[in-house]
Amino acid sequence: MGTRLTAKSAPPEEGQVTTGPIYRSRKVYNTVTHTNTDGSTTDLRIPARAIELTTGEDFEVYDTSGIYTEDNPQLDLKTGLAKTRDEWEKPEAAPASDEHPELKVKTQLAWARAGIVTPEMTFIAHREGFEPEFVRREVASGRAVITANHKHPEIEPMIIGRNFAVKINANMGNSAVTSSIAEEVEKMVWAARWGADTIMDLSTGNDIHETREWILRNSPVPVGTVPIYQALEKVNGDPTKLTWEIYRDTVIEQCEQGVDYMTIHAGVLLRYVPLTTERVTGIVSRGGSIMAAWCLDGHRESFLYTHFEELCDILASYDVTFSLGDGLRPGSIADANDEAQLSELKTLGELTRIAKSRGAQVMIEGPGHIPMHKIPINVEWEENWCDGAPFYTLGPLATDIAPGYDHITSAIGAAIIGQAGTAMLCYVTPKEHLGLPNRDDVKVGVITYKIAAHAADLGKSHPRAQERDDALSKARFEFRWHDQFALALDPDTALEYHDETLPAEPAKTAHFCSMCGPKFCSMRISQDIRDTYPAQLGMPGGPNRVVDADVQAAVEEGMKEMSEKFREHGGQLYLDEAEVEEEIQQAEGENASIN
Amino acid sequence: MGTRLTAKSAPPEEGQVTTGPIYRSRKVYNTVTHTNTDGSTTDLRIPARAIELTTGEDFEVYDTSGIYTEDNPQLDLKTGLAKTRDEWEKPEAAPASDEHPELKVKTQLAWARAGIVTPEMTFIAHREGFEPEFVRREVASGRAVITANHKHPEIEPMIIGRNFAVKINANMGNSAVTSSIAEEVEKMVWAARWGADTIMDLSTGNDIHETREWILRNSPVPVGTVPIYQALEKVNGDPTKLTWEIYRDTVIEQCEQGVDYMTIHAGVLLRYVPLTTERVTGIVSRGGSIMAAWCLDGHRESFLYTHFEELCDILASYDVTFSLGDGLRPGSIADANDEAQLSELKTLGELTRIAKSRGAQVMIEGPGHIPMHKIPINVEWEENWCDGAPFYTLGPLATDIAPGYDHITSAIGAAIIGQAGTAMLCYVTPKEHLGLPNRDDVKVGVITYKIAAHAADLGKSHPRAQERDDALSKARFEFRWHDQFALALDPDTALEYHDETLPAEPAKTAHFCSMCGPKFCSMRISQDIRDTYPAQLGMPGGPNRVVDADVQAAVEEGMKEMSEKFREHGGQLYLDEAEVEEEIQQAEGENASIN
Repeated sequence: MGTRLTAKSAPPEEGQVTTGPIYRSRKVYNTVTHTNTDGSTTDLRIPARAIELTTGEDFEVYDTSGIYTEDNPQLDLKTGLAKTRDEWEKPEAAPASDEHPELKVKTQLAWARAGIVTPEMTFIAHREGFEPEFVRREVASGRAVITANHKHPEIEPMIIGRNFAVKINANMGNSAVTSSIAEEVEKMVWAARWGADTIMDLSTGNDIHETREWILRNSPVPVGTVPIYQALEKVNGDPTKLTWEIYRDTVIEQCEQGVDYMTIHAGVLLRYVPLTTERVTGIVSRGGSIMAAWCLDGHRESFLYTHFEELCDILASYDVTFSLGDGLRPGSIADANDEAQLSELKTLGELTRIAKSRGAQVMIEGPGHIPMHKIPINVEWEENWCDGAPFYTLGPLATDIAPGYDHITSAIGAAIIGQAGTAMLCYVTPKEHLGLPNRDDVKVGVITYKIAAHAADLGKSHPRAQERDDALSKARFEFRWHDQFALALDPDTALEYHDETLPAEPAKTAHFCSMCGPKFCSMRISQDIRDTYPAQLGMPGGPNRVVDADVQAAVEEGMKEMSEKFREHGGQLYLDEAEVEEEIQQAEGENASIN
Repeated sequence: MGTRLTAKSAPPEEGQVTTGPIYRSRKVYNTVTHTNTDGSTTDLRIPARAIELTTGEDFEVYDTSGIYTEDNPQLDLKTGLAKTRDEWEKPEAAPASDEHPELKVKTQLAWARAGIVTPEMTFIAHREGFEPEFVRREVASGRAVITANHKHPEIEPMIIGRNFAVKINANMGNSAVTSSIAEEVEKMVWAARWGADTIMDLSTGNDIHETREWILRNSPVPVGTVPIYQALEKVNGDPTKLTWEIYRDTVIEQCEQGVDYMTIHAGVLLRYVPLTTERVTGIVSRGGSIMAAWCLDGHRESFLYTHFEELCDILASYDVTFSLGDGLRPGSIADANDEAQLSELKTLGELTRIAKSRGAQVMIEGPGHIPMHKIPINVEWEENWCDGAPFYTLGPLATDIAPGYDHITSAIGAAIIGQAGTAMLCYVTPKEHLGLPNRDDVKVGVITYKIAAHAADLGKSHPRAQERDDALSKARFEFRWHDQFALALDPDTALEYHDETLPAEPAKTAHFCSMCGPKFCSMRISQDIRDTYPAQLGMPGGPNRVVDADVQAAVEEGMKEMSEKFREHGGQLYLDEAEVEEEIQQAEGENASIN
């Protein structure tokens, strides 16, 4: 504890999890005062990671790692983290919607529509650098969700929506046999350490309930599940033996435990299954194939679809968010954007409207395997058909031909679909299609997806995204090696790679690296130029610019054109206040008629 | 020799290089008859890798690995590979251009303009699946280059152009001290084994000439260099001591040895240097910083610029291709698409026209570090200003914040710029910005860039690109594990990852993998569905499709819209015959006036 672990550090001892600060960083909490509906106030502690630069300044970054990266965290894995959100205000139930004013629910959506800024919204606003009112508006419009089950008070609230930083999810719990509490918790702690914004527990096998309990009680990030996996275990793996009642009871069991969002493949309809028969890879979603088998057996409609309103009311009563699953997503380049995929998506739009009318929060899962030129239109379809609900995609993989490197094939697709407006990206590890990810694979998957998400944030011109790039590049140009490592997404690996060829401490301040050596170091020469020829460069006082008129025009035209292209692609600038205002007035009009 | 090496196999013994076939593959040569200008014929042996599928079929893929992947290659590293191209016809010199009909040169460009299909063009056409006449037209237009020095007869010809498969380059020779012939050759053999289309020898230090000789004589792929590095060694590393004469002699020395293309930073003009002073990372190109220092010292214009015509005539006399360097490329997100970068690019356009008018082939180097939304317009600028000369980019990196993972940050940018029309992508390894790539890093860099290039080919709708994706996905769905590994870009790693959890041979035919296990295997369930419910699925005879009209419209509109978007981005379909025809008639008009 308190040691600064490196990437290659051995897994923690039995009964322990990875703790201690990340390289040259310390955990900080910024206190923010939230005003409750009754006028009283609550102090919220917003976590961040302060990177201690050699210049003496701190550089704070968004941090998902929970108390595990404190210097000396007080942990008890059996009881779990502090139930912080239990101390926060839970406002009175609000009307679910205009269509169903008779339903009163306690969900972030209903509260937002009622004009209430919850403690979660205040927390998120300060964490991401927006106004609390902006957060409320995005949630009210359904363009963003806050995945926070009332029964999961341990988490640090987090928002998923196209106008916020792109989030990433890491999948856990693939193994059927677990050896200890710590081992399962460690996977989650490890993923959150490197930046996972949510984790999904996809456990199968006998210990499914207990494993989930350990994860939930100790997770600082929201937890998602796919309840059909546990339901299938209850019928010994025979999809045709599933019933609505078994499924419903499983959902309630998981809601009670504190699961924050659930993948529900309610769009796999009987009539869509034949659309998959000419595909190269058929149905590649586990939940999708289970439901397809159930529908075909007895030629009946999916119980998830026929009982959807009931599901909505269960989930809304806990404020569990729907993650409407894409059971018919394409599993190969050949199957991308086909009728099966789009038919299901259209049905998910129908279900989105039902869920929201009953006050439940909704996001939509997306593909899969899609070639680059077919990616952006997926976001357009999703936003048009599903009323702008947040999109949550698996990759997509931009090619099928690189098993062993599918974190990379999918990072290409993920960055592109993120730039186009996808709100959360589900990671893919190097073991995808091949085997179970180990500790290193999980980290590589998380870091790779932090890259994709950040590239997308830059590509969307997120107002604060470039600050970290600039800080790191400035450190690079000034040969502040320690700062360069510390500002990196994975300081341990950056340090390790540097030290492979130049391990000595003086190399950490040297004005070159092993790549080019001192004689060929362009940055050193570039700095020498500035030192040697200040007059010729017109410094100080700014350089004597001599710019070609065509170039000047191109730079300006480029900025304009990029912005237009961005919009064409369904892009939307952050904080487009006019547009938001219009939508909100509409939403508030609805509320006015309700109240 | 002859053993099927795995990714993790130890480096070869002293004096040896990695040889033997890739997993379940054999080297094949397809014979094609080329007709010479005098009507005689020459048989050309086109290399390919035949993947032996368990279905009994072969699947042939483009192969850059040379004889090293033969079962029992006859190697003598000291004498090098067979000088095959010396036996091919070299047609008479042809007029350089309309502007300079007095210059007669033997370059692929001049021959193509004169209507001559060279053996290299025939070879390339069959290797890539196009008509030889199409290859000639692309070269004649300057949209493609064939990097093949007359003095480098050992190489297997290869084309770089936006209407061909996207190519990748791997950099070599960063270390100053080398221990043996084999060690240097091995780096090249290893990169070519995994798919490098060209390699660049960036050696510095004392043994620069000899190292290059070993590489050139043994390389099956074209070799590029940056002559200023060797020139700088000749003046003991002081840029201000460089002279045109020293540089020119170095270029001639390298042309004589057989270098196929050269990075020449002739666009770094004196007046552009001050444009870099307000940048976050200044000048990050080694060649660029050297030339900037030279220009500022004495306030003089670059000798590369002032002597450019002379350079053209030297390079054209060997048919060495210009790779006009981007000495002022941005080295950080903050500096992307700025005046310094664009000013240089505009000058490169001017130089392109001079070089082509003197019969020399030209490609243009590009950035660097660029956020996603600013990438595609780079290709538009390059094509507009540089008359469509092939673009050859380093990445670009889509974010600065992930040192240790810059193969991934740059693969995102590379795939996007490749889709937009870039013809060749220079790889980036995980060690970028940190240290020297080792054997594993080189492989990871090459495979990552094969992914980016292939994703771009798919994104550009290259007519044959999807065949391999389909073959692999079909193997995946049919649980032909060995075929899935063999069709992968890196079979050894795919196999290794699979075997980590399921090493037994029966698992290679099992209808599930360790990720989900048999009960949750969607593909198995999906296959069971097809087997169990043929009638319900309307099989055989095609499924009973029930498709929503909106979905049908979306699928069709999607195809149309994608195609439009593609064109908006400067994209161009392969074999757009009408457009090509028009340009060629123009070009032939020029030739008509010459001849």
